Amino acid sequence: MQNRIYLDHNATTPHAPTLRARWAELIDISGNPSSVHFEGRIPKTILREARKKISDFLGCSPLEVIFNSGASEGNSSILHAVFSAATQPRNELLISQVEHPSLTKAALSLQARGIKVHWIPVNRDGQLDLDFVRTHLSERTALVTVMFANNETGSVFPIRELAAMAHAKGALMHSDCVQLMGKYDFNFSELGLDYASFSAHKFYALKGTGFCYIKNTAPWIPMIFGNQERSRRGGTENVIGIAALNIVLDEFSNSSAHIARMKDLRDKMEDLILAEIPEVKVTARNSDRVSNTSSLVINKVDGDTLLMSLDLKGFSVSTGAACSSGSPEPSSVLLAMGLSREEAQSSLRVSLGWESTEEETKLFVSCLKEVVSKLRDINSEEMKKQYGTK
Amino acid sequence: MQNRIYLDHNATTPHAPTLRARWAELIDISGNPSSVHFEGRIPKTILREARKKISDFLGCSPLEVIFNSGASEGNSSILHAVFSAATQPRNELLISQVEHPSLTKAALSLQARGIKVHWIPVNRDGQLDLDFVRTHLSERTALVTVMFANNETGSVFPIRELAAMAHAKGALMHSDCVQLMGKYDFNFSELGLDYASFSAHKFYALKGTGFCYIKNTAPWIPMIFGNQERSRRGGTENVIGIAALNIVLDEFSNSSAHIARMKDLRDKMEDLILAEIPEVKVTARNSDRVSNTSSLVINKVDGDTLLMSLDLKGFSVSTGAACSSGSPEPSSVLLAMGLSREEAQSSLRVSLGWESTEEETKLFVSCLKEVVSKLRDINSEEMKKQYGTK
Repeated sequence: MQNRIYLDHNATTPHAPTLRARWAELIDISGNPSSVHFEGRIPKTILREARKKISDFLGCSPLEVIFNSGASEGNSSILHAVFSAATQPRNELLISQVEHPSLTKAALSLQARGIKVHWIPVNRDGQLDLDFVRTHLSERTALVTVMFANNETGSVFPIRELAAMAHAKGALMHSDCVQLMGKYDFNFSELGLDYASFSAHKFYALKGTGFCYIKNTAPWIPMIFGNQERSRRGGTENVIGIAALNIVLDEFSNSSAHIARMKDLRDKMEDLILAEIPEVKVTARNSDRVSNTSSLVINKVDGDTLLMSLDLKGFSVSTGAACSSGSPEPSSVLLAMGLSREEAQSSLRVSLGWESTEEETKLFVSCLKEVVSKLRDINSEEMKKQYGTK
Repeated sequence: MQNRIYLDHNATTPHAPTLRARWAELIDISGNPSSVHFEGRIPKTILREARKKISDFLGCSPLEVIFNSGASEGNSSILHAVFSAATQPRNELLISQVEHPSLTKAALSLQARGIKVHWIPVNRDGQLDLDFVRTHLSERTALVTVMFANNETGSVFPIRELAAMAHAKGALMHSDCVQLMGKYDFNFSELGLDYASFSAHKFYALKGTGFCYIKNTAPWIPMIFGNQERSRRGGTENVIGIAALNIVLDEFSNSSAHIARMKDLRDKMEDLILAEIPEVKVTARNSDRVSNTSSLVINKVDGDTLLMSLDLKGFSVSTGAACSSGSPEPSSVLLAMGLSREEAQSSLRVSLGWESTEEETKLFVSCLKEVVSKLRDINSEEMKKQYGTK
């Protein structure tokens, strides 16, 4: 593989070095955890260990953790559990305007089924409109769902406050927590959530594995049927994915140090960008953000062209959520935050990881400066030509 | 690991030797297939290759294949797609009595929602009651779902005939095909299915990965929302799982030879069991069966005790579906087929794999003979004691 610099950790993270070191051990685990014989007992033990580590890290009971295929499944299944309950007399949902497609699309499908959906606005500093929440929360609200941190800007939302507001009206609270692990110091049990979703591939483990937190008092109806996970999520478990998670979680005793180091690195990188490249803004810079994310608006440069130019030079960044990329539309998240279409189209997301170094960010800024300058020159040449020939 | 003989391939298969050989290559693939940069292009290519191989093997279009976490998700999502369509005027389901819990539980939940469910009986020879199907199929039927082969007995159901009957009434046809790949020669395109579900871990690839066949004319509504898989199944794809599938599928050009060899081995093993151990019956022996499965009823022996005794001696078999094991109840599949409670409680499932050898099956039969004889002696001693003291 060519020598590249990966700065797109919000899309997915590289596998932890310990996973690569212990791969031979993982591929040997092939039993079905539901089997009662020897081959079944090995994966069953791994599932128990991983579940225990997660619950210790979150400060909850192991019974409140269910394994699944990742946060998209988690998000969809939580909306399913809350809104398909036949005994559910509440039929309103509050959801922020900047959620992941697994939630916004699920919410639109609920809306089509007659559920009243209130879309909570977010301003360009990444602040959620709490007045809107106060006005629209009521005894008809079944669920409030707001992500812990936005995947494009890194803005952290006031989950604890929202959960308290939701509970005061008897509503349930969910948070998509995919941008949380390894990026921000948190005390999960203080958040007061009823549901939360996580994806292992966002914190150095494997794609196709994730888990949900479901508070023991929160209602649940399975979406994928079967006997596994105490009948709450069917399907033979992704044993290698969970075994990988079990290995990676051991590194989280030290996550605070990684988070502090990344934040320092990210802040220095932003300072350098703002000092070296004219007409750049950092979106939501003054709001509380996860430690690794920079969302830049670079005037007079098309984000997609910039991304491709940087890719050719060996740097991987993105213009927004990976799962929305390839689309010619500018980021709906940035538009919802009140950025103009032009600003959203000139945006670039840089997201660092535990393995990122200052050497890498310096090389990146120097390359960014060069590419931006070149693209602006081309743009200005084209403008001249257009005006010259007309 | 101790030297064991694994005869529980219907629960899950060991990983293919090629996967173990190429695991280092797999763990290196960490990009998100939705990313447009270099790291995203590698997994994107793997997804395209694997999808092409599957569609070539099934004789369908690559667009008719969607990746998911396995057949439990596939089964649940297909019932969801058919019965949550707001435009669905049909509200009846025909389902066999011997399906996997992912389908029977999903059907029970539909029933609770007002969908009329007709449970198709199966007799002890593994024959589906086609007269029942004829009587209950109507213009109100939305879907018929019958597994390709039963996971406990190996009986193959007449899917082609059922699909033709369903289509004649304008209904859709689904089949849970988890016990098909590598166990039975089939011409998928001739079956006439609208939907089918597959799990990679049933044919030497990894747990947590599977795919659905969705005919291009069949309706679809996503259950897990997101932009992946053309918005039909959200969630970052299980890239390593799909890459493993891509490797394992290369071995399927030779699957017929494996199937013929396993069938020969299984038949010889059954002959030997019937010759060596008195009072044993092979369930559905005279029906069309997949090549690797033997469902035995061993009189006067408790299946669970037998399983544990064999486990201690290094043999892994099961008493029924792995995902139902641990339950003290006898197999609901065998009960539905008309076996008595006592017969069902004396049942043992032996399922061979591509790597099984005649040496292994001979060792197994010899151990089975010894254990059965010992358990029957203990039983008969206990009977004597009971009658002696009473």
